[in-house]
Amino acid sequence: MRGTSKCYEYNEPWNRRSTASLAVPPLDPGGSTKYYEGNNPRDSKIDLKAPAATANVLLFEVLDFRGFLNLDLWKFAVLECVASMMNTFLTSWVALHPPSALASPQTELGIYHTSTFFSPLFTGLTMTFLVPLLIYTLAPSSGGHINPTLTMATFFARMITFPQMVLYIVGQTFGGALGGFAINTAYGSRDFTVGGCSVNTSVVSVKDALAIEFMGCLILIYVAFGVALDPRQGRLFSHAASPWFIGIILGLVTWASAFTREGYSGASLNPARCFGSYVASTFPSYHWIHWFGPFAAALVHAVIYYLSPAWVDPRTQSS
Amino acid sequence: MRGTSKCYEYNEPWNRRSTASLAVPPLDPGGSTKYYEGNNPRDSKIDLKAPAATANVLLFEVLDFRGFLNLDLWKFAVLECVASMMNTFLTSWVALHPPSALASPQTELGIYHTSTFFSPLFTGLTMTFLVPLLIYTLAPSSGGHINPTLTMATFFARMITFPQMVLYIVGQTFGGALGGFAINTAYGSRDFTVGGCSVNTSVVSVKDALAIEFMGCLILIYVAFGVALDPRQGRLFSHAASPWFIGIILGLVTWASAFTREGYSGASLNPARCFGSYVASTFPSYHWIHWFGPFAAALVHAVIYYLSPAWVDPRTQSS
Amino acid sequence: MRGTSKCYEYNEPWNRRSTASLAVPPLDPGGSTKYYEGNNPRDSKIDLKAPAATANVLLFEVLDFRGFLNLDLWKFAVLECVASMMNTFLTSWVALHPPSALASPQTELGIYHTSTFFSPLFTGLTMTFLVPLLIYTLAPSSGGHINPTLTMATFFARMITFPQMVLYIVGQTFGGALGGFAINTAYGSRDFTVGGCSVNTSVVSVKDALAIEFMGCLILIYVAFGVALDPRQGRLFSHAASPWFIGIILGLVTWASAFTREGYSGASLNPARCFGSYVASTFPSYHWIHWFGPFAAALVHAVIYYLSPAWVDPRTQSS
Amino acid sequence: MRGTSKCYEYNEPWNRRSTASLAVPPLDPGGSTKYYEGNNPRDSKIDLKAPAATANVLLFEVLDFRGFLNLDLWKFAVLECVASMMNTFLTSWVALHPPSALASPQTELGIYHTSTFFSPLFTGLTMTFLVPLLIYTLAPSSGGHINPTLTMATFFARMITFPQMVLYIVGQTFGGALGGFAINTAYGSRDFTVGGCSVNTSVVSVKDALAIEFMGCLILIYVAFGVALDPRQGRLFSHAASPWFIGIILGLVTWASAFTREGYSGASLNPARCFGSYVASTFPSYHWIHWFGPFAAALVHAVIYYLSPAWVDPRTQSS
Repeated sequence: MRGTSKCYEYNEPWNRRSTASLAVPPLDPGGSTKYYEGNNPRDSKIDLKAPAATANVLLFEVLDFRGFLNLDLWKFAVLECVASMMNTFLTSWVALHPPSALASPQTELGIYHTSTFFSPLFTGLTMTFLVPLLIYTLAPSSGGHINPTLTMATFFARMITFPQMVLYIVGQTFGGALGGFAINTAYGSRDFTVGGCSVNTSVVSVKDALAIEFMGCLILIYVAFGVALDPRQGRLFSHAASPWFIGIILGLVTWASAFTREGYSGASLNPARCFGSYVASTFPSYHWIHWFGPFAAALVHAVIYYLSPAWVDPRTQSS
Repeated sequence: MRGTSKCYEYNEPWNRRSTASLAVPPLDPGGSTKYYEGNNPRDSKIDLKAPAATANVLLFEVLDFRGFLNLDLWKFAVLECVASMMNTFLTSWVALHPPSALASPQTELGIYHTSTFFSPLFTGLTMTFLVPLLIYTLAPSSGGHINPTLTMATFFARMITFPQMVLYIVGQTFGGALGGFAINTAYGSRDFTVGGCSVNTSVVSVKDALAIEFMGCLILIYVAFGVALDPRQGRLFSHAASPWFIGIILGLVTWASAFTREGYSGASLNPARCFGSYVASTFPSYHWIHWFGPFAAALVHAVIYYLSPAWVDPRTQSS
Repeated sequence: MRGTSKCYEYNEPWNRRSTASLAVPPLDPGGSTKYYEGNNPRDSKIDLKAPAATANVLLFEVLDFRGFLNLDLWKFAVLECVASMMNTFLTSWVALHPPSALASPQTELGIYHTSTFFSPLFTGLTMTFLVPLLIYTLAPSSGGHINPTLTMATFFARMITFPQMVLYIVGQTFGGALGGFAINTAYGSRDFTVGGCSVNTSVVSVKDALAIEFMGCLILIYVAFGVALDPRQGRLFSHAASPWFIGIILGLVTWASAFTREGYSGASLNPARCFGSYVASTFPSYHWIHWFGPFAAALVHAVIYYLSPAWVDPRTQSS
Repeated sequence: MRGTSKCYEYNEPWNRRSTASLAVPPLDPGGSTKYYEGNNPRDSKIDLKAPAATANVLLFEVLDFRGFLNLDLWKFAVLECVASMMNTFLTSWVALHPPSALASPQTELGIYHTSTFFSPLFTGLTMTFLVPLLIYTLAPSSGGHINPTLTMATFFARMITFPQMVLYIVGQTFGGALGGFAINTAYGSRDFTVGGCSVNTSVVSVKDALAIEFMGCLILIYVAFGVALDPRQGRLFSHAASPWFIGIILGLVTWASAFTREGYSGASLNPARCFGSYVASTFPSYHWIHWFGPFAAALVHAVIYYLSPAWVDPRTQSS
């Protein structure tokens, strides 16, 4: 029947669009605006084979390497690269210090009156305001991940395919490096550290830093799925609010994890940002924790995600 | 008549969903999203026996121990555990001090220029921003209690069953302990105290601390019911605002109770958080006040709740 | 067919109005309010020749010099001039310093306790609150650019014609000069510098300053298109929010770029503002970077804009 | 025809209400609330003669002195007087200083750590929050001008008649004086200055102060028309937002103009407030600039207003 199929077409792009975008645009009744379905562009071969597959990519689809031939995915990766470049430049620039800048407390105000406290506060505020605006800009096309942590998490939740993950992360990391080159030019020196990407390993062991990085990424991913990515969530708020909530949790964890322990400047949450800031200065031996922390958090989150009682396989439901 | 029964069915799931969730999702006319009814999952035996019982669980239902066989309740408890772990980690990390850190005022600005004032302020702000985002994430499934204080209060208000209360509190406390282990790893030492969970018993008597804990929990529960839990409340604001009001009252009481008296670092309001922070450091002799305070406040609130002139037994109403 | 043409007429004025305005008014069903189509007034010759051309001006139209004869464009330029005068006056006045005012850090708080940090913070806040209100005022007529950076960016994205760009930029620059004369009168001296327009070339090389200026303008343009200018964007938020997002990104970049490097007072983002402040004080040798930075950023953005997979030529679509 | 006249009656009160009110109440379909048409009460003789004249008063109407016999205008003037008294008292009380209180900077924080900076900041915040609430209260009756600057601007834009302007300004100034008497009683001394109304003429020439006063009033009027008064503006935001925007621009200009130049405490923007504060202390020789600045700004704005291409004479349109 015509009415039914029309209804089907109505819901279909919505679900598909919502799967890996950090902000879902409202339905457009007039239909004049053309949206791209974040992860499964309509004209891709993957999609045509299984039109009913929506929120979750089937296992064999995940490993379908033909996605590397999809021009749209490459374009999305370029957009992620540009946004990651801008994000890395501004949030690293505002957190940039000469290596000796972090001071020990000398007054009764303790740590709260030193740059050790204020630097991550201002970095967190910069993220809180910059990231939502970048997500708004990218959400209708690439989905606005910007951050490899979120790209990994959507992959392990089977929302995007392996080629898409690889292209996005390469784009984001390359964008971070471009931002790093810009910082290098703008600062005129390589002798600095960036808040969130600096661990004084003589005071803080790498294992400790990894624990904080893991917990921070888990909180970020859990909230990002709860307020934006999970298509099964009943939204309590306007879609326009989701990017701001992600900005808040990013800024909050960046700030709250940064000043408690001497020698540790806070969780990174974004490996591309630290990669870029190391391109601008020098690579430390502990850079792997900024990649392994998000990776482990994305894996653990995927387990929680499938255990969640709200989960219903959309294919089971529609059959 | 058909119209009447349709209207009845329309209101029914709404009431049941709202009873123990800290944020009520809007009704979903299309019906594509599947929500769980926070406390009485549709397929539980309790529910099938008395489908009209909604906001309040009957007395014999409260003690029906078959709820322990309900798989959904176990899954909800796991989600509460995960959220409690993240909440305990971040809010304890930001409030963590070496035991000697709290300073006496030395300038004319008095207490307002010491870490004794700023530490609970920043802890309160962290709660204000973190807790609402976690509630958004959990509200459609477990209801987003996160905190044993609120779980106890919903039990005494006959909104959830005894098995649900036990499973939730065990989950929240275990999550607190997991968060404590993460703090332990990340800080690399057991020699610290956490704001809101530390009482200097040589200066402040345990009885005094219990009085503040009780008053703080009562304020929290009263406001949480007023803005989110009580199904009889006429809401003046969008449902999306409720979690933020709970975050604000949590942060406000945490901060406002913390700096007035020397040797007392503020009301806990969340026994699972203190339990976790003691796992990370050491258990003090006065830990019982963080459990007895919320328990007494939940009992007293239940009396206020049933005395409230707005209360109407839903079964009386429908008969 | 009737349905199609009706749909076409519905979209037409909307698209044309949205092309170069920083805030699109909602459609007015009653029709009592008369709006002007920002860039292509209905009665202009350009428009009558190609009524289907909407979001993008055709290449030969861009260079149609008859736009200089359009009285409305001149009136719009006068409005841009007035707004630029007020914007330049207030945001420069609040950022005005005697040349020696920027202090080096002397306490453990480092840069965060000096006027070097607070001055751009307050300048950024002034922009965040002033610019959206000016955009609201101008959006229904000239589009509310106020800033040559955004006018250049809309030109390179083929949203406005060459004559419109020239008239706007001349108006904005002349308005900046008028604001500069007012500052000159109000301050009673030419011996000062203005934050965002001052580079100590003995410490910071001009190339470094250009790098920051370019990155800042790119971020501004990218976000301005993402949240307001790009007609292909699916808006996630109310149109009323766009001007505030532009205010936020302006204030954020102004502040975040200003205090990291000694001798550099932050990105300008608005060449007309610096032009005006130099009229009030003296022109430095490096003023060209405040024009070349936005120019290069607008060019680079135009390339990203046309690469974006969301781009569909509206003429191709409607044929 | 009936349909046409119904449509006419629908639009008519809307336009008339919007002409000189700083917040337009939403249309009330039920009709239970009774609003007054700001400037031309329905039962006045002026109105009955020319029912089609709405947004703009005809030239001979402007000078019709029979308005002085209109009882409603007198009632509105009393309301303006009461609001002006409250506004003057609170915003002057918060800005009140002993003459020696404004300090020179002594630390590296410069001006930002002195009462010279904080006093106008808190005054501006008080205005930002107080004025919108007063406008909400008065908008349905007198229009909520409160401030002679806005009354002058609406007169020169031909929105109100000469008698209305005179009655309003007399009421506002008398209210300012009443507020001044209250300050005098509450402070117990005449030996103080009020921020925004004090110029140290030994340091700042009166001509310089007039330049800032003029620019500040022009910004205020321009934005007030853009966001609230101009009936031709396409509103982008809820009507509830207009008073807040006016509060923001008032607070912003008050604060931003106040601390840059030593000896000048900021633009007044409201001659009635300064008049009241001089009643409470003593009248200086330069009080005329607080009246001439707004007068000149209102005149210049009227020219811009009629040049604006959006302007269409409503009588031409309806004929």
